[in-house]
Amino acid sequence: MIRASEDNEYYELSSPTILPKASGFLWNEQMMIHMNCRGYAVAQFMQPEPAKYSYAPNLEAKTFMQPEQPYYAHHPGRFVYVKDEENGEVFSAPYEPVRTPPDHYTFAVGKHNIVWKIEKSGIAIEMTLSLPKDEPMELWRVKVTNLSSAPRTISIYPYFTIGYMSWMNQSGEYKEALQGIVATAVTPYQKYQEYDRIKRLKDKTFLLADHAPASWEVNQEAFEGEGGISSPSALRSSLLSRGESRYESPVAVLQYQLGLEPGEEREYRFIFGPAQTEQEIADIRQRMFLDKAAAGEDGFTLAEREYAEYIAEGRGCIEIATPDADLDNLVNHWLPRQMYYHGQTNRLTTDPQTRNYLQDNMGMSYIKPQMARQAFLTALSQQAASGAMPDGIILHEAAELKYINQVPHTDHCVWLPICLSTYLDETDDYSILEEIVPYAGGEETGSVFEHIDRAMHWLIHERDERGLNYINQGDWCDPMNMVGYRGKGVSGWLTIATAYACMIWADICDRSGRLETGKAFRLSADETNAIVNQYFWDGEWYARGITDDNVVFGISEDKEGRIFINPQGWALLSGAADEEKQQKLMKSVREQLETPYGVEKLAPSYTAMREDVGRVTQKHPGTAENGAVYNHAAAFYIYGLYAVGEQDQAYRLLRKMIPGPDIEDIIRRGQLPVFIPNYYRGAYKQFPKTAGRSSHLFNTGTVPWVYRCLIDGLFGLQGTREGLEVKPQLPSDWPEVTVKRNFRGVELHIKMQREAGVTATEVYLDGQLVEDGILKDLKSGMEYTVLVKIPPSNA
Amino acid sequence: MIRASEDNEYYELSSPTILPKASGFLWNEQMMIHMNCRGYAVAQFMQPEPAKYSYAPNLEAKTFMQPEQPYYAHHPGRFVYVKDEENGEVFSAPYEPVRTPPDHYTFAVGKHNIVWKIEKSGIAIEMTLSLPKDEPMELWRVKVTNLSSAPRTISIYPYFTIGYMSWMNQSGEYKEALQGIVATAVTPYQKYQEYDRIKRLKDKTFLLADHAPASWEVNQEAFEGEGGISSPSALRSSLLSRGESRYESPVAVLQYQLGLEPGEEREYRFIFGPAQTEQEIADIRQRMFLDKAAAGEDGFTLAEREYAEYIAEGRGCIEIATPDADLDNLVNHWLPRQMYYHGQTNRLTTDPQTRNYLQDNMGMSYIKPQMARQAFLTALSQQAASGAMPDGIILHEAAELKYINQVPHTDHCVWLPICLSTYLDETDDYSILEEIVPYAGGEETGSVFEHIDRAMHWLIHERDERGLNYINQGDWCDPMNMVGYRGKGVSGWLTIATAYACMIWADICDRSGRLETGKAFRLSADETNAIVNQYFWDGEWYARGITDDNVVFGISEDKEGRIFINPQGWALLSGAADEEKQQKLMKSVREQLETPYGVEKLAPSYTAMREDVGRVTQKHPGTAENGAVYNHAAAFYIYGLYAVGEQDQAYRLLRKMIPGPDIEDIIRRGQLPVFIPNYYRGAYKQFPKTAGRSSHLFNTGTVPWVYRCLIDGLFGLQGTREGLEVKPQLPSDWPEVTVKRNFRGVELHIKMQREAGVTATEVYLDGQLVEDGILKDLKSGMEYTVLVKIPPSNA
Repeated sequence: MIRASEDNEYYELSSPTILPKASGFLWNEQMMIHMNCRGYAVAQFMQPEPAKYSYAPNLEAKTFMQPEQPYYAHHPGRFVYVKDEENGEVFSAPYEPVRTPPDHYTFAVGKHNIVWKIEKSGIAIEMTLSLPKDEPMELWRVKVTNLSSAPRTISIYPYFTIGYMSWMNQSGEYKEALQGIVATAVTPYQKYQEYDRIKRLKDKTFLLADHAPASWEVNQEAFEGEGGISSPSALRSSLLSRGESRYESPVAVLQYQLGLEPGEEREYRFIFGPAQTEQEIADIRQRMFLDKAAAGEDGFTLAEREYAEYIAEGRGCIEIATPDADLDNLVNHWLPRQMYYHGQTNRLTTDPQTRNYLQDNMGMSYIKPQMARQAFLTALSQQAASGAMPDGIILHEAAELKYINQVPHTDHCVWLPICLSTYLDETDDYSILEEIVPYAGGEETGSVFEHIDRAMHWLIHERDERGLNYINQGDWCDPMNMVGYRGKGVSGWLTIATAYACMIWADICDRSGRLETGKAFRLSADETNAIVNQYFWDGEWYARGITDDNVVFGISEDKEGRIFINPQGWALLSGAADEEKQQKLMKSVREQLETPYGVEKLAPSYTAMREDVGRVTQKHPGTAENGAVYNHAAAFYIYGLYAVGEQDQAYRLLRKMIPGPDIEDIIRRGQLPVFIPNYYRGAYKQFPKTAGRSSHLFNTGTVPWVYRCLIDGLFGLQGTREGLEVKPQLPSDWPEVTVKRNFRGVELHIKMQREAGVTATEVYLDGQLVEDGILKDLKSGMEYTVLVKIPPSNA
Repeated sequence: MIRASEDNEYYELSSPTILPKASGFLWNEQMMIHMNCRGYAVAQFMQPEPAKYSYAPNLEAKTFMQPEQPYYAHHPGRFVYVKDEENGEVFSAPYEPVRTPPDHYTFAVGKHNIVWKIEKSGIAIEMTLSLPKDEPMELWRVKVTNLSSAPRTISIYPYFTIGYMSWMNQSGEYKEALQGIVATAVTPYQKYQEYDRIKRLKDKTFLLADHAPASWEVNQEAFEGEGGISSPSALRSSLLSRGESRYESPVAVLQYQLGLEPGEEREYRFIFGPAQTEQEIADIRQRMFLDKAAAGEDGFTLAEREYAEYIAEGRGCIEIATPDADLDNLVNHWLPRQMYYHGQTNRLTTDPQTRNYLQDNMGMSYIKPQMARQAFLTALSQQAASGAMPDGIILHEAAELKYINQVPHTDHCVWLPICLSTYLDETDDYSILEEIVPYAGGEETGSVFEHIDRAMHWLIHERDERGLNYINQGDWCDPMNMVGYRGKGVSGWLTIATAYACMIWADICDRSGRLETGKAFRLSADETNAIVNQYFWDGEWYARGITDDNVVFGISEDKEGRIFINPQGWALLSGAADEEKQQKLMKSVREQLETPYGVEKLAPSYTAMREDVGRVTQKHPGTAENGAVYNHAAAFYIYGLYAVGEQDQAYRLLRKMIPGPDIEDIIRRGQLPVFIPNYYRGAYKQFPKTAGRSSHLFNTGTVPWVYRCLIDGLFGLQGTREGLEVKPQLPSDWPEVTVKRNFRGVELHIKMQREAGVTATEVYLDGQLVEDGILKDLKSGMEYTVLVKIPPSNA
């Protein structure tokens, strides 16, 4: 029912009802569209803040993307109603809003397009959505084919939701000269000071067609009549009534009447999007539909091709063939695509959270390292001279810190060395450390090295008398906004993370010849680890923190929130946990946090407010940060497992992030494996019915960490100053894998195989044994063959 | 199809499709619910800011009430699905969401309840909604009757929308112990500082039933299945599946299975509303359903009765019988009810605009003058020592100025004497002028007299060198926020209004023995009127204002916004217009602003931004302030017509505010005449198709002014210091009317009739001619008979 297509670029779904929320998304530099398999759409574009051109039926709140918002009958969508002119029967493609079961159905999520193929009563409708690479508009193809053996007379009615645009103004009409529908509104505002911004907005929504329609309707109410959206009364007339909308919700519906011979097919193309002026729309029409390039290709076709090329640039640096086909498909296609999306768009916000911005660009180190480099410099240019990093990075002059970025968090500095290290591993571009960058305000400047130095010192000094890091109103991944808002509460995780960051930074210092500094930070890391063990070790695992009232929490005495994943995973990384503590904490995680769907963030989920912890405890149990399988946090734990050589545990948990291959599992999650969502529902022991269900959100710091788990851990193909260190940690039951690794301009064709008699990993470069396993002196532009012999798993 | 019921308290509609947006509303001290005839509901309650307990399917923006928001399939509603257990047929009452045409249908909007009676295939469903007088909850009765001649087996499924409550948390389940459904959420917040407020909110939504249901469903998705809300899949099973909601949209659906003999009827009662805790809900159940009073009446029945009494207290001070039955019905029932709503609830905001607050309480002078008195004192206690009035009056310690109240307007002082004069006329309570009231900040105090004196002086001094009043970012009823934001632009209307306010205040001064002050303000009024004529008279009417760049607008040279109603109506009141100017401006209004649906606010409506006028020009043509028949403004014009003795013009325009009696007119307006909306669509000449359509909004300052038009104008029964002055201005074609007038504790039974031979109005009190027409020495608690003889209309 669900399968990856032959060329491994599509995930296909064969029914609209089995996974009703299954979805795919496309994006470009200006916009994002998230389509579900049944035709519902969430689209936004940047001007510069996220805005809509296809609206809800009411005035929707402007907020961040919701993780599990439901669909509803009048949810914005893109549909094609099809009416048999002989018997009056109506169905709609892809499925909404008529919901007639199709005879055949395919929803295929591609990397650069999304395609539906619907067959019903001898008529096939194929809908294809693509985008241009740098304009906010949707490119639609609708192909209609007569599959029956007799001629057919039908009408098709492409339907694009415009919705409730604004209370200040809204209207819409068909424009003969544009061969399309234009709806107009004014973004609501009340103060004259806002007018200057408002007047520049793209407040029009347009639909352009390459074929002149037989008729149209722009008035939602007139279109639906008493039949409603699932059976619009207007379809009972032979022609739509060419209505307009005057302070009524507009809709864009066109009607085409077709006589089709057996086997005959017709294709229609549409462009749907926002614009500021009618002139802009006329220009788009000219460029996309009317002008032809030399090759006879019009702007529409060219835009589709350019978009495919744009997406193709988002390749990762490994291509794998393993015994795990689902992992292969994810890693070869979807995972780098999702990383690329994050790096290209910064989650379509103008003020990404600092930690997100750094991690998203950490991922770009594998795809477009130049972009990662620039992003690190941008982030550092907003660092305070004190070393403190701001809560968000401002990416547009008109941007301001919004939503959660208005709540002070204390962890942002931690991410600087951690994320930079990947960039350095991948590129060996240590010259970045010498770049001179201003501090916020621009009065003072310093090298990147000095910047990060100050960040580390800031972390080391924002501590209480015990040496524990203040949590203030929160740190990473837990909105624990009441643990330390009175200035005393501390974070176990952040203290551990500081040790880890110091260690990473010490390594970078050492590798860049700053040995004294490196030594000092290594000492800080060791001291911090010792303090961590003194105050946070609870006997079987590490505590999460200590409140303003000196209450330790995330410990065995707690009824809810007994154990949190983050302190455990990071203690594996920071070196805080010795061998004995490692075993104990891993056992605790297995017993208390591991579920069939991954590792939960904390357990048991809070079911009621705990006032000395704060907001996280008011989130729904098993969602978002309150006990979900929060993939970002889980990825760190897995990364920690690789750090201590626990490859089988690591793979087991990694595997749980990817739905399938079991169809039951995919159905429970409710989402095709074309992206890793930010979470799966947790609270497995408390609410087993809903556990495992997927969030819709594809914005997540998870993806670069999964990639690091693969590069640094599973396949062990991490860069070093000297070259590429080969140190795989394959699951015990994998006999062999092949990996194509692109690294600093070199293409490596690597085969890893278990061999009887091998007692320690042996690495051969073009047949030559490499004693230390580090591939050196690789020449840019060259290809190499690498053979890695691994001891058999029972060795 | 539409009729007022016999006792004149109901407006009834006999089809759900003829006026699909027809609606009624109920309110109490804590909440408001606006129901449409098809079952959709908009409800909000105060805690202290407006909040919901029945939500949209998405995260809706918090904003002011929208004037013409459309309904949509998943709009919150209250429905009863009915299934015939023998043949599986389903319909829903009142109409949504199944939309099966009923055999019989009545939607009856009462003063204290709303009733639907639906018959379909031999089953009658009667739904009745009432409220308690001071708690936020809905009281529902659902009566089911078997009208057929055979026994019937059916299931009924009362359905109450809960919707998308919150992204922070949402769940719902049936609670056996409560015999009802409880859904829980946490209002979204991100800063710990908000927690203290959040934790006190009524974030639960409950549905309690007086009968135990056979089954229930709390999971919206599970209930609908592929059938959707118009044909829920769950109805195909014999019993609902008792689902719960876990971070899914909850719904409250109960199922009752009934075997009904011919003629048998059953009644079910439900309570739907918000609560903070389960204990609260348990207490409500105990009090409303379980405890019985001595008379055997339970809390539910008692609450209904108390609510009817509460509403009955909102009687006006006249009851009329005229040749115009629609006017009678409006004036005797709906108009005082709507005034009472405004005065009791202050439009369910914690920061009513100052002018609204004063006018709404002006209306209360006719109903509960003690409340009006207190409100005037409250408003004055927020006046600045400079005399300036704030943009909004804060009614709750936690309230703040929101939305339009953040934009500085210059007209608020004008309303003080104007609104107070009604209170004084009605009560003769001149002692209010001696009350000592603090100024904002509380350091200074002064008598009400001094307060208003300062307000008048503030108006007289906030003027340019010509003596014209600055408009700043706006004045009344036009969001002309860019005329004067640079500090130079002036308002024609406000200058005229200042003259009128000075005149009214001079009258009050005179009547309270402050003759010198009175004389000074009368002089100010005269001077101001002269200046108005110098700068604003355009030849045929008065201009609206002069911009920062010294451009006069609202004049004959303008293509759009040539003429505005407000300067014209107020010039009739202020005395600026002499007889010749009066005739000219009335002609201009007739020709340019009068439409079949009333007088437009301005014409022609702006169709594009005019940057030196501002935001009003970006509103949709013919809506809200941009060229609508803005009833509040129209009422002033009518009041002005009475002031200059133009009773026939006045009545003609007054009559246009009330839809009907022509059914075509009611249908065009789209609303039953149970309230006067804030506007009807205008732009009659530009967009005739939509002109006349009614806004949904029943919040409007129109109503007390219509009442004043009747009291001071049409019936001429205005209070004076000496008594009640009788000076009717009946339409020429009315031969007679009777009026019961309640006035200062006295009940007057008045008959007014045209008589041949009468040459000037003659007033007889209990048979005695009253020479000056002022009824004096009336004894509180007494009833009197008054005969008013009026010259025949051709006299």
